[in-house]
Amino acid sequence: MSKTLTGIAASAGIAIAKAFRYEEPDLTVEKKTDVDVKSEIQTFDAALEKSRAELEDIKTKTMESMGEEHAEIFSAHLLVLRDPEFVDAIRQKVQDDAVNASFALDELTTQFVTMFESMDNEYMRERAADIRDVSKRLLSHLLGKPIVSLAELNEEVIIVGEDLTPSDTAQLNKEFVKGFVTNIGGRTSHSAIMARSLEIPAVVGTKTVTSDTAQHATVIIDGISGTVIIDPSPEELKEYEEKHKQYEEQKKEWAKLKNEPSVSKDGTHVELVANIGTPEDLVGVHDNGAEGVGLYRTEFLYMGRDDFPTEEEQYEAYKKVVESLDGKPVVIRTLDIGGDKELSYLDLPEEMNPFLGFRAIRLCLEMTDMFRTQLRALLRASAFGNLKIMFPMIATLQEFREAKALLEEEKQKLISEGVEVSEELEVGIMVEIPSTAVMAPQFAKEVDFFSIGTNDLIQYTMAADRMNERVSYLYQPYSPAILNLVKMVIDASHKEGKWTGMCGEMAGDEVAIPLLFGLGLDEFSMSATSVLPARSQLLQLTKEEAAQVAEQALTLQTAEEVQDLVEKKFL
Amino acid sequence: MSKTLTGIAASAGIAIAKAFRYEEPDLTVEKKTDVDVKSEIQTFDAALEKSRAELEDIKTKTMESMGEEHAEIFSAHLLVLRDPEFVDAIRQKVQDDAVNASFALDELTTQFVTMFESMDNEYMRERAADIRDVSKRLLSHLLGKPIVSLAELNEEVIIVGEDLTPSDTAQLNKEFVKGFVTNIGGRTSHSAIMARSLEIPAVVGTKTVTSDTAQHATVIIDGISGTVIIDPSPEELKEYEEKHKQYEEQKKEWAKLKNEPSVSKDGTHVELVANIGTPEDLVGVHDNGAEGVGLYRTEFLYMGRDDFPTEEEQYEAYKKVVESLDGKPVVIRTLDIGGDKELSYLDLPEEMNPFLGFRAIRLCLEMTDMFRTQLRALLRASAFGNLKIMFPMIATLQEFREAKALLEEEKQKLISEGVEVSEELEVGIMVEIPSTAVMAPQFAKEVDFFSIGTNDLIQYTMAADRMNERVSYLYQPYSPAILNLVKMVIDASHKEGKWTGMCGEMAGDEVAIPLLFGLGLDEFSMSATSVLPARSQLLQLTKEEAAQVAEQALTLQTAEEVQDLVEKKFL
Repeated sequence: MSKTLTGIAASAGIAIAKAFRYEEPDLTVEKKTDVDVKSEIQTFDAALEKSRAELEDIKTKTMESMGEEHAEIFSAHLLVLRDPEFVDAIRQKVQDDAVNASFALDELTTQFVTMFESMDNEYMRERAADIRDVSKRLLSHLLGKPIVSLAELNEEVIIVGEDLTPSDTAQLNKEFVKGFVTNIGGRTSHSAIMARSLEIPAVVGTKTVTSDTAQHATVIIDGISGTVIIDPSPEELKEYEEKHKQYEEQKKEWAKLKNEPSVSKDGTHVELVANIGTPEDLVGVHDNGAEGVGLYRTEFLYMGRDDFPTEEEQYEAYKKVVESLDGKPVVIRTLDIGGDKELSYLDLPEEMNPFLGFRAIRLCLEMTDMFRTQLRALLRASAFGNLKIMFPMIATLQEFREAKALLEEEKQKLISEGVEVSEELEVGIMVEIPSTAVMAPQFAKEVDFFSIGTNDLIQYTMAADRMNERVSYLYQPYSPAILNLVKMVIDASHKEGKWTGMCGEMAGDEVAIPLLFGLGLDEFSMSATSVLPARSQLLQLTKEEAAQVAEQALTLQTAEEVQDLVEKKFL
Repeated sequence: MSKTLTGIAASAGIAIAKAFRYEEPDLTVEKKTDVDVKSEIQTFDAALEKSRAELEDIKTKTMESMGEEHAEIFSAHLLVLRDPEFVDAIRQKVQDDAVNASFALDELTTQFVTMFESMDNEYMRERAADIRDVSKRLLSHLLGKPIVSLAELNEEVIIVGEDLTPSDTAQLNKEFVKGFVTNIGGRTSHSAIMARSLEIPAVVGTKTVTSDTAQHATVIIDGISGTVIIDPSPEELKEYEEKHKQYEEQKKEWAKLKNEPSVSKDGTHVELVANIGTPEDLVGVHDNGAEGVGLYRTEFLYMGRDDFPTEEEQYEAYKKVVESLDGKPVVIRTLDIGGDKELSYLDLPEEMNPFLGFRAIRLCLEMTDMFRTQLRALLRASAFGNLKIMFPMIATLQEFREAKALLEEEKQKLISEGVEVSEELEVGIMVEIPSTAVMAPQFAKEVDFFSIGTNDLIQYTMAADRMNERVSYLYQPYSPAILNLVKMVIDASHKEGKWTGMCGEMAGDEVAIPLLFGLGLDEFSMSATSVLPARSQLLQLTKEEAAQVAEQALTLQTAEEVQDLVEKKFL
């Protein structure tokens, strides 16, 4: 009999295939004494070499299929394998105690992991996770129980697992992996984001899929509704085959819109643009017909290295993106580090509530040398296209004025050095802190544009950490509170002849789109893969009807009521 | 030559006296081997006994002078002294290794502290601090270098120190300690709050006062402006003696207002009420002529014990407060635990951002047995006076409806059991989350009243942890953003014929009072000691003028501009 589960729709699409249960091998270690030290060390060195080759391979594949950002984690793993403090200590232990290498490895891993984890510092905890990952790989070779490589799957499957790590997801081959479904995770978890970027249907957070699914059972996943059906009946199979066909046809329809303008049924134009993290993401921007970049997150330039990127390195990266967009707008956000995003070479104090802490513009206004370097690189790149600068986490007008003043200083310096800088450079801010939304009328007199960052705005407005599962029910994009704040920002900007964009997950959400369009949002920035569905949705809307529904939503009592209203009217 | 420092005004008043530099003795420990084990253990037991007696004494004094809440920390210290895992381990080490007791103590303290601190759990870290404190006391007796007891000061002094711990502050004798000044701390740090409660002038956060002040130097502290003068000139001395006299006279004037109504110059009445934590605080409420209790924090009933308080215990506490107020309003807030407030017997998951986490009503709506017990106790106590119930951390209407439904269920049960319950029980909510302020029009249709909790509302609205010194500059009560949110709440409540109070620090602040009065706030709840100054200030204001200034403040650009405006008009 078939069984239906409901999880979180993490990546759109329908998939039907045999289940591939992804489990880790038993890597329990036994202690052996009086071993042949020399042969143990040879075994260990061989395992080391195999792991290294494996990781180099995964890293290269990831770089090609998903870009540098995603490949970074494997650089970190390779660093562990090269770390003498770790590797030599294992050899030493084998030698001193005449124990087997797998035992020595296991002991030292525990020791290192405990030490790093006790440091109570997010960066060190990540190092602990890296060591654990690498140690598992080494152990699998030492014990001769290879970890299943997802990269080597050669028949069509749906992966069923507790959760997928970044290493797991990076190895997925789209040709054979038709989708995945997990017990844990949320819409903004790492594996969910990667699934959307790979365009593989996925459902996460089903809680029980691993215990409900036998190896090779037929599984249907509906990444649009979050439904998972195990051992479907012939009727169900037929129904979802039909749905799959429809979805594929819809995708073809969407593809036709690639070079079309983003207009509503009654001819109102908005900008549908994409969020990117690295120049590698430009492929997706062009393939999906985005009208520009609404958010270029510059953090990745600073990550996975030993020191700050130079002005020249940044300039090259920004220039590449701006030139590639060929006159279309590119909104670049200055460094948003701190909070949960740390840099290995930047020693920040531990904080009790990092999301309410010393991050983004707060940090840049103190570390002005670092900030000025980025501003100079941005100014220089501005000469090559339509670059706009955006400051993150602005809470007060003083902060904006300080940041703007630094930018002006660097601009004047460059001009006096004879360097070309765009004359029409717009300077705006993220609206992701409630105070800034409430004070939008004051800000609108001084900024060139707003971009509403809903991921943070929602968590601060609801006082609920969106990463914390205990309170994630409060992450409510459709809350009338959020809609009222969005309206305040849009109205304030229009009153001063400025424009408002949005660059959170919400901007690409099909329930939110009619509301945002109705409220007058000028620019929607989203995952590149959402641009065409959004354009298609927009074509069905009229401004008047959307505005009426949005006006009504503002006065409703709950997020559920808002969702019901939109679904009844538009979906 | 005199030297002037500026710190944070932590507790109002002027003090002039000799400096008493409060420093810790050198408690460095030497290792001795081959000691006479029996005599070492006797020495240790004697030190243990002395420490125990000392702590019992401090605890009793604190209980008398400051109430149960403040005395709790010493119960925790006494528990450490009684803990066999700690004490016996020390004896064992002396015996096993034949080392001196002070060395054994020092070793084991380090071991326990490291272990507890590495647990990365706020509660365990506090236990680590307790062990460190107790160990210091034991060591001081073992080494014969007594820690200076602030309780034994017998001449008039101003204490000058790096910081004061709760143990330090609890021992202060108002007769001799005229004030204190420290290098670190903020207006909401523990020592600052205790200073206000003891009515001792204090300035904190001067950064350098300990290095700038010689033992017995004459020091002036102005706890109104935050000024500290070391070795004042005769002119300065005269000036501040005059200021001190004026302040004392002002206090006498304030005292005359104890039984007067709280009305403005043009006869508009508001309610000036007090915040309390335990029934012990009622003395201050009556002494300062508060017109009721605007916030009774029930957390303290749950703290410093091994299990939840019973319905009967809670009922007795609530009844005592309600009866003591004799018909005046008493707003009781249901349990606000979680975040930075933990209970030893309640095992909550560790959170990355506890201020954005599983706390207060979020927790109560899951732990409904605990919550129902409190609701029953409150309902039963409501028969004895003017009790109002308030739910903390409400972010959505669903949460309020759920909490209200539980209350109604318990009410009906009690009525059917024949228990008397007030017919006119008002049920309101804290407005401390931005979403709730923005949705005040929707909430106002369903709640009986609002009480704006500014401490949290400000930190969420600015997305800045108020306990984090790196971002404390963003804790801006006078921000136009905060004032606009306050206005939304007040206007929404009045439109539905409801009332709005405020129970954060801001309600008793002399810059905020004219603005809040101008915006139409109905009830101001503050530290009991602020009630009379607030009443005096209110007497000088007219509604029309305050409303004009408030209206103007809403449109200003920055918190500084707002402060300047109020100071120019009213102060």
